Amino acid sequence: MFDNFFNKKAPEPPESRLRAIEGSSTADLAAQLLCAPTAMMQLSHEEARIVISYMQPRRIAQGTTFIKEGDSRNTGFMLLVLDGEVTVETIVVSRVEPITVTVLGEGSLLGEMGLLDGEPRSASCTASTEVRCAILTRESLEQLMIDNSHVAAKLMLAVSLRIAERLRDSADKLKMYAQLTQAMQQEIDHLMPS
Amino acid sequence: MFDNFFNKKAPEPPESRLRAIEGSSTADLAAQLLCAPTAMMQLSHEEARIVISYMQPRRIAQGTTFIKEGDSRNTGFMLLVLDGEVTVETIVVSRVEPITVTVLGEGSLLGEMGLLDGEPRSASCTASTEVRCAILTRESLEQLMIDNSHVAAKLMLAVSLRIAERLRDSADKLKMYAQLTQAMQQEIDHLMPS
Repeated sequence: MFDNFFNKKAPEPPESRLRAIEGSSTADLAAQLLCAPTAMMQLSHEEARIVISYMQPRRIAQGTTFIKEGDSRNTGFMLLVLDGEVTVETIVVSRVEPITVTVLGEGSLLGEMGLLDGEPRSASCTASTEVRCAILTRESLEQLMIDNSHVAAKLMLAVSLRIAERLRDSADKLKMYAQLTQAMQQEIDHLMPS
Repeated sequence: MFDNFFNKKAPEPPESRLRAIEGSSTADLAAQLLCAPTAMMQLSHEEARIVISYMQPRRIAQGTTFIKEGDSRNTGFMLLVLDGEVTVETIVVSRVEPITVTVLGEGSLLGEMGLLDGEPRSASCTASTEVRCAILTRESLEQLMIDNSHVAAKLMLAVSLRIAERLRDSADKLKMYAQLTQAMQQEIDHLMPS
């Protein structure tokens, strides 16, 4: 069922996209997750359904790394996790093992930065269980901007809000590191034989 | 002249907003700066003119701190610098003087995160010369989303791109700090009397 209700051929008229997901409980779940606080709470359920009608379903096997850190080719999509768990990892030079940044589940969004700027992926994402998800490609986003710019504007507002939240979080960590390195430098100066 | 071409009363019909900036060389400059690479190169000049017609002009006296770090009330606007220089500073605990993060000039955008999420300001901005700028408030952005959602969607896309760029930059710095603290810890371990 999951593989049937989404549209695969594009561009399709907006009405037929919506008709294609009508009555699908998975599309309803996806829309519900998309406008939940973890994803994009600024969208109404109806708007989320419109966005979902532009997304494609995917089933990812356990153990698959579907976003690779540094990858500069496979960048133009974001992904809404419908079911399952994703481990996000990043490599820090001078370490052999990557660092697990976070584990994301149902209702999480991944890859929204790549969707926007197409720059190399900043972290790797691996399915730690089987994962069901819905994908929004840059092409579909552009089509949505043409077909329904009001919903596209709200979607972009929601995406920016999520990125802004991460940037604030990151800025806090940078301040913490600035203090930490300062304290460590003092300790080194103190320990140094004079 | 600068203070006359922008609209001050809202909501006004989109056509009369555009009429109000017609023939104004400052509005042209503002539109040109808005779609320049430093600001939002994704907007066409015509789209930038539409955005500008929703913005308000401001003249800021030298020495004025017009955005204050931690301020949680005065948050709902972003600002395009038309002329002059702005110093961006942030306070790091354990330091007496704030750290200058960057100096921004003509064509720079400031405060786009506050515009989106209304969270407390993450840094302070002080006019280091007299500054001419154009301000977009959250109310005007919402009005633009109603009046011209296509331009609003492109504006939001451009704002997200700018924030994404800063997030990537910040993520790189975090990685650098992670390495630095690791190296410093090794030095401390090495210097420690065993």
